[in-house]
Order: sequence, then structure tokens, then C-alpha cells
Amino acid sequence: MKITFIGLGNMGAPMARNLLKAGHGLVVYDLVPAAVAALVGAGASAAKSIKEAAARAELLITMLPSSPHVKSAYFGADGVLAGIAPGVSLVDSSTIDPQTAREVASAAAAHGNPMADAPVSGGTGGAAAGTLTFMVGATAELFERIEPVLALMGKNIVHCGASGNGQVAKICNNLLLAISMIGVSEAMNLGASLGIDPKVLAGIINTSSGRCWSSDTYNPYPGVMESVPAARGYTGGFGADLMLKDLGLALDAAKHARQPVVLGAVAQQLYQMFSARCAGAEDFSAIIKLYMQRKFQ
Amino acid sequence: MKITFIGLGNMGAPMARNLLKAGHGLVVYDLVPAAVAALVGAGASAAKSIKEAAARAELLITMLPSSPHVKSAYFGADGVLAGIAPGVSLVDSSTIDPQTAREVASAAAAHGNPMADAPVSGGTGGAAAGTLTFMVGATAELFERIEPVLALMGKNIVHCGASGNGQVAKICNNLLLAISMIGVSEAMNLGASLGIDPKVLAGIINTSSGRCWSSDTYNPYPGVMESVPAARGYTGGFGADLMLKDLGLALDAAKHARQPVVLGAVAQQLYQMFSARCAGAEDFSAIIKLYMQRKFQ
Amino acid sequence: MKITFIGLGNMGAPMARNLLKAGHGLVVYDLVPAAVAALVGAGASAAKSIKEAAARAELLITMLPSSPHVKSAYFGADGVLAGIAPGVSLVDSSTIDPQTAREVASAAAAHGNPMADAPVSGGTGGAAAGTLTFMVGATAELFERIEPVLALMGKNIVHCGASGNGQVAKICNNLLLAISMIGVSEAMNLGASLGIDPKVLAGIINTSSGRCWSSDTYNPYPGVMESVPAARGYTGGFGADLMLKDLGLALDAAKHARQPVVLGAVAQQLYQMFSARCAGAEDFSAIIKLYMQRKFQ
Amino acid sequence: MKITFIGLGNMGAPMARNLLKAGHGLVVYDLVPAAVAALVGAGASAAKSIKEAAARAELLITMLPSSPHVKSAYFGADGVLAGIAPGVSLVDSSTIDPQTAREVASAAAAHGNPMADAPVSGGTGGAAAGTLTFMVGATAELFERIEPVLALMGKNIVHCGASGNGQVAKICNNLLLAISMIGVSEAMNLGASLGIDPKVLAGIINTSSGRCWSSDTYNPYPGVMESVPAARGYTGGFGADLMLKDLGLALDAAKHARQPVVLGAVAQQLYQMFSARCAGAEDFSAIIKLYMQRKFQ
Repeated sequence: MKITFIGLGNMGAPMARNLLKAGHGLVVYDLVPAAVAALVGAGASAAKSIKEAAARAELLITMLPSSPHVKSAYFGADGVLAGIAPGVSLVDSSTIDPQTAREVASAAAAHGNPMADAPVSGGTGGAAAGTLTFMVGATAELFERIEPVLALMGKNIVHCGASGNGQVAKICNNLLLAISMIGVSEAMNLGASLGIDPKVLAGIINTSSGRCWSSDTYNPYPGVMESVPAARGYTGGFGADLMLKDLGLALDAAKHARQPVVLGAVAQQLYQMFSARCAGAEDFSAIIKLYMQRKFQ
Repeated sequence: MKITFIGLGNMGAPMARNLLKAGHGLVVYDLVPAAVAALVGAGASAAKSIKEAAARAELLITMLPSSPHVKSAYFGADGVLAGIAPGVSLVDSSTIDPQTAREVASAAAAHGNPMADAPVSGGTGGAAAGTLTFMVGATAELFERIEPVLALMGKNIVHCGASGNGQVAKICNNLLLAISMIGVSEAMNLGASLGIDPKVLAGIINTSSGRCWSSDTYNPYPGVMESVPAARGYTGGFGADLMLKDLGLALDAAKHARQPVVLGAVAQQLYQMFSARCAGAEDFSAIIKLYMQRKFQ
Repeated sequence: MKITFIGLGNMGAPMARNLLKAGHGLVVYDLVPAAVAALVGAGASAAKSIKEAAARAELLITMLPSSPHVKSAYFGADGVLAGIAPGVSLVDSSTIDPQTAREVASAAAAHGNPMADAPVSGGTGGAAAGTLTFMVGATAELFERIEPVLALMGKNIVHCGASGNGQVAKICNNLLLAISMIGVSEAMNLGASLGIDPKVLAGIINTSSGRCWSSDTYNPYPGVMESVPAARGYTGGFGADLMLKDLGLALDAAKHARQPVVLGAVAQQLYQMFSARCAGAEDFSAIIKLYMQRKFQ
Repeated sequence: MKITFIGLGNMGAPMARNLLKAGHGLVVYDLVPAAVAALVGAGASAAKSIKEAAARAELLITMLPSSPHVKSAYFGADGVLAGIAPGVSLVDSSTIDPQTAREVASAAAAHGNPMADAPVSGGTGGAAAGTLTFMVGATAELFERIEPVLALMGKNIVHCGASGNGQVAKICNNLLLAISMIGVSEAMNLGASLGIDPKVLAGIINTSSGRCWSSDTYNPYPGVMESVPAARGYTGGFGADLMLKDLGLALDAAKHARQPVVLGAVAQQLYQMFSARCAGAEDFSAIIKLYMQRKFQ
């Protein structure tokens, strides 16, 4: 199948390479010439515009940074809907707000193109290794059609229900993740300050009702686990500023739905404070620095 | 061995019964005559005062509601230290603040009595079944001595380090538990409001980075899991007012240690609001009612 | 001078009437025919489109509900910039986010039209009485030109600096107002629960360092003041849902500026909770109901 | 009248001096010999114990750092109630929790001694100048009797109702003050980040509904006002750690009364974070440093 892939950034480029490796014909587009050139070197064919890339697609996938980029890529005069043939399936793997995802899918459907939102988790490592998780919002029929392709780039392809639900699943999970990570940070820092050995405390929590991924798989307290960002100065991993972006999406969605998310709102503010005071480029588990003893300059 | 057990409430009574069943001689004391009578009917011997109960002990265990009760039981003119023979080991299984636990243990040590703090988790069900978890703060020597006795009442006996650390472990775990439970409530309510099926959302979270005990073992959203309080109108389980008490201990300990616990403080206030507006006697997972659509009267 | 007024809602209609009373020629436009008819009955002339209304203006004023409305009114194919003559001054009195205000003003300037943002406070009562406060973001020159016209609708016309600063002033003031109102609610409810007479407590606060407008002019505790919403069942005044909207603008602006607003975020969530659980149409001081003793249904 | 004054710290010493200046005979006690010597040099007579100081009193005043000090001073074997003659009036000007204030007053009443709680505001400057505000919890009869003496040390002597209400008034005011100060910090920092001149913003707030003492009398943003701590590097004034102590009292009282104080709890945590990360000895308006651009070390 001839697949068009638009958006060749840190995530998109390795995802596209996995499609090439599987033997698919690939048309690519990106604003950055070097990103395009690298994929062309690996066997892809370059398009001069999104419209042209779309016109050549039997399946089209986008991986873009934010809602405005997605709207512009699909709705622009030189965009996807201007070039795509009716009937071709569309997949947007960007992480954006569910409202926009549904608005774009609805316009695509009106144009004759079934569209899925399919944001991912797993980071650049998972993108390279082809082990991403895809959270997919689509009709059952469309999900069935795209699943084999997504399975070339990920190992868990989860159908979350109708259009937009992929985004809903992702932002709800990450909302809870941010809250849990700060909760673990508070509990670990408090316990250590009160005199318990952090490894002992983590061991107890991990076999008790406080157990969570942020504690048993990604503990933020230095020295508790190996092979996590806390063991290497909070480098690598999932950047705090990316978490801040996802919290922004979750809080916007909650405002839109008129639902309270009290701890989520405080979590967003603490990540905002961390980003301004510490280093937003560090892994999101570095939020524990807000709690451990350090002075302002 | 002749064991003295003081405090025969909802937790203490079934714990004491498990010691009797194991064949130990048991001296008991409680302010409530009926509670004493029930244990005497099962084979225990009643003491007329804490002092007398202490005087007859080869090992002494207390299970009391709060710090003032513990201080009064140990330091009162008619209390434990007034009656106990030097050398007899002491175990306090009450959940209290670490400072008080350390103060009492220190006074006991000065009196010649090694003392452990050993708060439990597992609830009244675990107390009856003998499957409690004990979090023990004690010297290695004392831990070794009391572990076989605690093992008659529980199945996980964890050494958390020196005096007070049992309490530290328990309040840090429960601090994180409260935060996680509210986090799950916010994520589940938000997701459902945005249109995803709650069971599908829970399934995704439980295999992703938002995974936690409050989501995969004790989900608060009605209809997601069977055999949890949410499936039976939030009856049974761990009462919201007990969680509120434990949050109070954690926040006091944080104030004492001069450490921030921002999400923990908000969690405490939300449980306080829930207790006043809804029903503090309901299971603590009913906190999700603050988020789901209901109106004030 | 011939003035065009677009947006004849609860605020816009009485503002427009005050311009008519002052003897100005008035061209009006609104989507609701009855709103237009009422002004025509008072002496205004109706335009069939925003474009036509703009084409007839010597000065143009808009009063619209939100950012998307403002963008559409100015940028639409049938909108202000499509019809307006270069050189005519523009005033937007809508309360919107500063980024959008600056974007629209910038496009207007490129078109040859100096533009001011001039959101108001004072409510529908102030609009009718002509006693509004205008917070104006504009060049000094433009401010001088429009001030006499604004003075026909308000009594305080404040120059806040360059474009967008009128919006900044308004949302920062209202952010602080929401925080203060909740702070007063917490302090008054706590004090009353601890046994002090609410009037006595308010009297002390109002002559001490806790003094604020929410306490000394608009106290939310029933029975403390006369002629405030708390004295009439929280009717009239500034609706809680309008405060929720303004908090949304403030939090969005803070996200855009990457600045933390921790209490502001919690205030937004509490108003969101209030809106869902109680009655968003009530005055914003009714937030105290979250604190006083009431049960969920 | 012969007055006994116990507690000659930063507040107590200048208060006691004002009684001497007014011509009263003064018996003093403090644990610090130099503090006693300074007062003796000014004409006071030293007592060797609290008990002896109490025995010589016709009116007794205490000014101590915290609840445990107050309980120990009144209830100790060598304390006030052990020495005082029945009928002598007692005044405690310490800032402590209302529960303890009521407990001590109740024990004093049982001993035949009417007792008032009379915490102050106004700081060391007000103590020296005799311009303190006294918030008094006492019967009307006792208030009438002690008012002339308190008026020698302060200029506002406010009767807050029955025993404990002086403390209630003080902690409720300071709870609101802390929330307002952080609210002003968030609003000022946000506004400045969005481009408005801080002086202009403060001017608008101070004539609008955001108006409060923290903005119009004690603005925390550097450069907005003269003669405030923000104008002199946050030196002098009311230390952040003292505000943290008062927030601790307010939150404890709220826990005791089972009332939520959500913004108050977050304010406490932010002051705790500030105290650990910045400098708790700085004026409490320095909390704005958590918001303005500074990096961790």
C-alpha cells in the first residue's frame, strides 16, 4: 500500500521508517528539508506540498505538534482535504484536544474520508523500536482497516471507541500520571524527611495501596531505582514541558466539559512553576525537585 | 506466652481473638465492659486497669484510636509504664503521628522496655482473617522477637527501620493513596464526560502509565469493577472519615518536618468537604461523588 | 458624530442607549432582530450586516460575548475590516483574552484603523446608569480621542497602557477578586463555625489586614451586610458563571505567558464545582455555599 | 495596680515597658535572664518563678510563643494557677489555637480567675509605639475591667465575644491575609508578564473590586509602593515564618471544626515551600518570589 506520512519530527521520522522497513511505499512531507531528505535517503518519495502528498495517498498519517498545526494541515488551501481522494482513510497521531480531533474528523467524513485519531505513548524510544501504544478513536470498521498498519509502528493498538476517544484516553491517562508522579514525590520526600529509608518506603508502597506506575516503575527519588531518569540526573524520558502541554489539553477539555479537576489544576500549576524555576527540558519525574531541599538563586 | 492486649474495638477485638486461637494466654483491657466480656467469653482474662493488665504481661500490645489515647494509656498514673516489668516488650498498633510514637517509645526505653510501633492496613476484614499488613518501626532485635506474634494476626510483617518508621510508612502510603484515589476520580469523571466508556478508559489506564491500585483494584467509578465498594453503593471498605484522619496525621507530620505536601493538602480539604457535604461513613472511594453530577439540597 | 454599535445584549443595549441620549447618531447591528428593533425604536438606525454597519461608522464600538465572536466580527468576509474606512477608530468593549485583543488590534492597525480594547466592569446596573469603569488599552493619542465618548457610558475611564492592557487589567483584577471572595468565604465560615458572631468577625477583618472589597463591600455571609446579593438569596449581581468565564481567560493567559497562578487555578476549579453542584446563575458570592453546611441530594 | 507580665520576648518586652511608663508597678518573669534584667533596669521587679510572679499579681498578662508554652506556664507545678490568688484577672496575649485558649480559660475560671485571650496584631513596631490591635475573647464584665490596661499598649481594643474568640478573630483575619497576599502576588506577576505596568495595574486594582490591604497598603511587587518591605528587600515587617505559624493554627482549627479551607491549605503549603526554598525570615510579602522569574540553585 502507498502510505503518505506528514510530519517527520522526533516521533514522526522513526515511525515513518518502520513503515518503510515493512515494505510499504511511502510519500513524505515536512517543512524541514533535512527531515525530508533523511527519509528520501531511506527510500521514501518526497512531495512538494501537503496537498500533493495527500493526492498520492492510499492511506494518510499525520504526526504534528499541536491543534493549530493539525487544523492548518487538514483545512489549509494547500492541505489534506484539498488534495485527498474520497474514500482514502486518514489517521492523525498528534496529541491534541478531543474537540479539535472531532471537528477535523467530522469535516473529513463530510468529504468522504473516514478519519481516526490515534495518539501514542511510548516516547521516541518506543517510536524507534516500534513498540508504541496507539489509542485509537474510530469506527469499528475503520479501526479494523488501519490496525495492521499501526501494528508496524506499535505493539498495543487499543480501540477506545468513536472519534475523539483516542485523545480522551490519552489526556485522561496523562492527567492521572501527572497527579500520581507529584503524589509519589510528596510521599517519598515526606517519608525521607521523617527518617525512613527511601528504598524501604518505596518497597512498602509498591506492595500496598499506594502502588502506582510512578512509584514501582519510574520512581522519582534518586537512588531508589536503576535505569530510570532519577538515576541519571533526570535526562531522557518524557520531558516536563511535554507533560505541561498534556496537562494544558486536559484542563482545556475539562473547561469545555464544565467538569472540575482540582488536583489536575494544581498539578498543572506545579509543573508550570517547575518549568519556570527549574528546567522544563528535564524528565517529568524531576518535579520532585520542587519538594527536596534546594534554595532559589 | 502471656500476652496483654489493650483496646478491643473494631480492629483490636478480632486481632486479640487470633492470638487466643493460636493458644496464647491473653489478658485484656478496654473501657467498654461488653468488649471485655466478649473476649473473656472466648478465653481471655480481664484486668481491672491498664496498670494491672501491664503488670501481668510478658508481651503487651495496644490498639487505640489516636495519639492522646496512646499517651494517656502509656503515661497515665494508672497506665502501662506504671505497671509493666522492665524488659517486657511493647507493641503499639494504633495509627498515630510519628512524633508521638517516638516520644512514647523513648520513654518506654528509658523505663527498660523495648517498644515497637506497628500500625496495620487491611481493615476489619483483614483483622478477622489474620491477613493484616504490619508496618513495624523497631530495632532489628525487637523486630525479630515480635514478628512471630504479629504473624498470628497478619500475613505481611514489614520492618520499616527504627522507631516511628512504621507510622511514617503508613501515613506516607495513605497520603499517596488519597491523592491517587482523587486523581482516578478526576480522570474517570472527565473521560466519561468527554464520551469514552468508563470500562474502556479504566482498561487503558490499567495497562498504561496512569496505572495504580485505586484504578486497577479499587476503581471508584460505578460499573467498572465488581466486588468493590463502588459496586455496592460505597458501603464496606475503608471509611472516608478514616482517610480524613490519616490525611490529618500526614499533614501534621509534614508541618512538623517543615515539608510541603501540596496535593496532599488539597486532598485533605476535598475529603473534609466530602465529609461535611456527603457521608463520611461511606467508603473513601465515594469521593468521586464530589465530581459526578449531583446538586446540593 | 455617527457611531456604530455592534452587539446589543444585556450590556451593549443600555450602553448604546446612553450614546443615543447624548445626541450621537447611532448605527446598530445585532443577530437578534428584537434587540435591533428596540434600539431603532429609541432612535438608532439599523444596518443589515456588520460590514454595512462598519461602512457607515465615524467611530465603531463592539460588545460581544467571547474571542471567537470578536474574531469573526472583525475578520469575517462580511465583517468590520471588510467594510470600515481607513482612519476610523475602533473600540472593542468585549472581555476577551489579551492575545486575541492584540491580534485583532494589530490587523486593524495594518488596515489603517487605530483600535482600543476597553472592557468594562460595573455590570448591567452600571451599563444602564452610565457608571461603568472602562479599562482601556490604546495609544495615548487614541485614548484621548475616544475618552469623551466612553465617558458617556461610564464614570471611570482608565488608560492601562498599550493595546491589550485593558484586557490584562480586567482579568488580573477579576482573578484577584475570585481569590478574595473564596478567601472571605473560608474565613467567615471557619470563624462562624468556631463560635464568633459573623458580624463581629467582619467588623474586625474590615479594620485589619484582611480587609478587602469582598469583605467590606460585598460580604458573602448571610446577615452581615444589607443590599448585597447575600442579603437577597444571591440574586442579582455578577453571576458565578461569568466569574468562571473570566477565570478561564486569566488561566489561559497565564498558560500562554507560562506563569503559575496556583490559587487562581484552585479558584477556577471551585467555581467549576459550584457551577455543576449549585447554581451558576447565582451571584458569584454564593460560592460560600460550598463551605456552609449543606448536603448533596 | 500591680501587674505581672510573663514572657519578655520581641513583643512582650516593649509591651511591658509601656505599662511601666504608664506608672504601673510591674513584676516580670522570663526564662532569659538578660530579658528580665533589661526590664528591671527600667523599674520592674523580678520574680524567681512563674508561681511567685503570679502570687504577686493584681492582674497577670502572658505573652508566649505557642500553645505548649501557654499550657505549661498556666498548668505547671510551678505555674500561674499554682500561685495566683482567686479573683485576680488573667490575660493571655499569645497567639495560639482557640481550643487551647478555651481549655486554659476554663481551668482558670474553675480556679476562680476570670481569663481573657487577647492576641495582638501590629508587630514589634506597634508593640513599641503602643499602637497594637488587641482582639479580646472575654465576658463583657472582664473586657470592661482589662480594657484600660490594654489601651496602654494598643490603640484598638476590640471585644470579639466570649472566651477563645480573640484567637478566632486573629487566625481568621490572618488566614484571609495570607490568601490575599498570594492572590495579589499572582495577579501582579501575571499582569506584569502580560505587559502592563505594575504601578498602573495596582492603581486599577486599588480602585476596583480586587482592592485589598495586601494591594493598597502592602503591595508585594517591587517598585509599586514606598515604605513597604518590597521597597527594602523584604526586610522588616511580618516574617513569612510567623505567617506560616498562623496558617498552621488556622488549619488546625479548621480540622478541629471539620470545615474545609481549600485556598487556606494551598496558601499554607506555598508558605511552606517558600520557607524551605527561599528565606522564611523575610517579610511574608516576599512570597511573590515563588512567582517571579528565579531559578533554583
